[in-house]
Amino acid sequence: MNMLDIIAKKRYAQALTREEIEWFVSAVAEDRVPDYQTAALLMAIVIQGMTPDETVALTMAMAHSGQILDLSGDIGYAVDKHSSGGVGDKTTLIVLPLVAACGVKVAKMSGRGLGLTGGTLDKLESIPGFNVNLSEAEFRRIAREHGLVLAGQSGDLAPADGKLYALRDVTGTVQSLPLIVGSIMSKKIAAGAKGIVLDVKMGSGAFMKTLDEAQALAQAMVDIGTLAGRDMVATVSDMNQPLGEAVGHALEIRETIETLRGAGPADLRDHCLDIAGHMLWLAGQGGRWTDAAAVRAELEGHLSSGRALAAFREMVRVQGGDVSVVDDPTKLPTAAQVEVISAEKAGYVAGVSAEHVARAAFALGAGRVKKGEPIDFAVGVEVHVKVGEAVQPGQPLLSLHVNDPAKLAEALPLARAAVTFSDTPVEPPPHTYDTIKARAAT
Amino acid sequence: MNMLDIIAKKRYAQALTREEIEWFVSAVAEDRVPDYQTAALLMAIVIQGMTPDETVALTMAMAHSGQILDLSGDIGYAVDKHSSGGVGDKTTLIVLPLVAACGVKVAKMSGRGLGLTGGTLDKLESIPGFNVNLSEAEFRRIAREHGLVLAGQSGDLAPADGKLYALRDVTGTVQSLPLIVGSIMSKKIAAGAKGIVLDVKMGSGAFMKTLDEAQALAQAMVDIGTLAGRDMVATVSDMNQPLGEAVGHALEIRETIETLRGAGPADLRDHCLDIAGHMLWLAGQGGRWTDAAAVRAELEGHLSSGRALAAFREMVRVQGGDVSVVDDPTKLPTAAQVEVISAEKAGYVAGVSAEHVARAAFALGAGRVKKGEPIDFAVGVEVHVKVGEAVQPGQPLLSLHVNDPAKLAEALPLARAAVTFSDTPVEPPPHTYDTIKARAAT
Repeated sequence: MNMLDIIAKKRYAQALTREEIEWFVSAVAEDRVPDYQTAALLMAIVIQGMTPDETVALTMAMAHSGQILDLSGDIGYAVDKHSSGGVGDKTTLIVLPLVAACGVKVAKMSGRGLGLTGGTLDKLESIPGFNVNLSEAEFRRIAREHGLVLAGQSGDLAPADGKLYALRDVTGTVQSLPLIVGSIMSKKIAAGAKGIVLDVKMGSGAFMKTLDEAQALAQAMVDIGTLAGRDMVATVSDMNQPLGEAVGHALEIRETIETLRGAGPADLRDHCLDIAGHMLWLAGQGGRWTDAAAVRAELEGHLSSGRALAAFREMVRVQGGDVSVVDDPTKLPTAAQVEVISAEKAGYVAGVSAEHVARAAFALGAGRVKKGEPIDFAVGVEVHVKVGEAVQPGQPLLSLHVNDPAKLAEALPLARAAVTFSDTPVEPPPHTYDTIKARAAT
Repeated sequence: MNMLDIIAKKRYAQALTREEIEWFVSAVAEDRVPDYQTAALLMAIVIQGMTPDETVALTMAMAHSGQILDLSGDIGYAVDKHSSGGVGDKTTLIVLPLVAACGVKVAKMSGRGLGLTGGTLDKLESIPGFNVNLSEAEFRRIAREHGLVLAGQSGDLAPADGKLYALRDVTGTVQSLPLIVGSIMSKKIAAGAKGIVLDVKMGSGAFMKTLDEAQALAQAMVDIGTLAGRDMVATVSDMNQPLGEAVGHALEIRETIETLRGAGPADLRDHCLDIAGHMLWLAGQGGRWTDAAAVRAELEGHLSSGRALAAFREMVRVQGGDVSVVDDPTKLPTAAQVEVISAEKAGYVAGVSAEHVARAAFALGAGRVKKGEPIDFAVGVEVHVKVGEAVQPGQPLLSLHVNDPAKLAEALPLARAAVTFSDTPVEPPPHTYDTIKARAAT
């Protein structure tokens, strides 16, 4: 087997064999192939595509390039979720306690994430004392004994994916359905998932700008996941405006707690009930949680009874966090100043640009550019209006939580440009566009 | 300007601007772009193609990445030729003296060439004392004063092409019409050519295996060359069997001298008269050598009168070679042993595989794998039959010129497999399939 033959096949749009893909992926993992050859093959894949069989082979080869966690002895059938990335997306923080409250053990590894507004781990770290850096043994023990754990990646999961992703990032080869699917799925499979919910965000604030693109990714994920022996749900949800109201670490934890108390923004609550329902559909394996209306009623019951919040509090306690912030979220980090942007005249909200809100939050200090840079947990943006809402002059649109006046100056024009208006009524966008469910191919 | 934007444009099959191509080529020449990004762009170009305007921009940018020779003060209008590579191709050695005999000054830089059977410079070095390593000043002086010079590349011509070619070779991005055209034309333009004859070899022994591919390359070369302000002739000639009879350095010099004496194999003589005629058509610039039949008669006259051979002898003398080998080619390096392969039964020659002959010559020691390796000037293969010829049992097919019996053992099966037979008559292939001529676009 040699790299030039493999490159030539893909350059001429031929399908690679499983053996060729496995050879290539292990050569990448072991640094046996120069980056320029890998880059040439990646570009050929980006342009010529991959068949479903090739994508499955790529996914499994990347998953097996490092350790594969087997959590079945700890939690039984492992359910995981993945979001393609949105602004104000604190879904994981709400959905995991909800599912745990139903008696399903969940053990999830999350990302820290670069980009404008940080990742789930960063949000958790705004709770004083919360420890996301668990050894594999601690991770397994907490999952087994407490039924809920949320931490950073332990061990060397899918190292070939890490290397390929770093190279894709600097060679213009990120945008490729098979490579995106392979990257997401290989990490989930390496982390032990048997059932996977993929939340594909669609809209101006998301990676996928159109419904066609988002549906194609959702369908491809389901196809590849089921071929790889996993049960799959993929849903396409709206990211034309931020999800919920809070964007920023402590602000999002506060909103998480509100939502787990049974309150919180309606769009966020609705979305989390959907995703939690999909996770239960998977966890039930056809024997339980098959009736969507009953599932939703059960989940709503856990919100109103306080069981979901109790599961969250227990997770905070077990992972070393200060549980008093769960009972009194005002103890979370708070910014020095709140700057409110209000409507100047009456009208209907035509758009709340998720990207502008994220850029404003970033300008205030809520994100990082390089791995390891510190972030300000307290700052961020609260979005008080949703698309379609009628507003009066003087009504608050956005609140900026600020620690540094110089940064406010940078954030203000971005925030002001975020909300656009119409003189005539505007139809609110749907929360969800499409959902595809399928059990593993046998 | 940045590399990721340029890669993305070509990945989506958009045309690059001249500025973008110039930026990229100078970044490559100055090592300002990492190989993995260049490899990604090359693969995108290979698959998505380039417009004629892009190819011209690439050609000119690579030509201008180093020094551009201006030979007009030395020889006036500079005519050059390039062959896409064949087995037994000693055309340059015959054509240059022929053209010089017509009063056209020619100053050509040739390659040493890797591959199975070495390049023109290697063949010349089988003449004792012949010096191909001339300074630019010597090269110019000989051209000016003697009207004929043939040497290795002096100076730093088209360095970006050299770097790109080295990377293409190890990233599966050699096979691309715009990249091939750009590479050939940039070197010719950098070497000062105003008129260029491209001899595209077609057949089992050539880079281009089919007539369609060869014609596409010929047409692209003419299009790009004329757009770049050069007068062009491109001809597609046969390489299903070796050109002439001799394959191997001293053997080819001997055949060169025979042909310049007015003898030599008919196919080689015919091909050289064609190519020399094309060079004269260019050199005449529409004012002379426009009548192909008259041109051929003039060239044949120089072969029979000995003027062409005299021009060759003068070139050997001026460049320090032993002219006595021109008068007595038996003084050339001679192998220790000649092994003759004869026909076992009567039949018609169906094929003489140029590739098998080349591999046999290589096995005997006529080629090199790495730059700088020594080669054996004396060894090689003489091919005594042509496709379509009727043979009798015992008639010699090939003679192997051997210095090392161990190498003979390796070469014999290759040589035996080279000639195939038919019981029924076989049509000989044409020498030339197509010729395209065009003056520079103004």
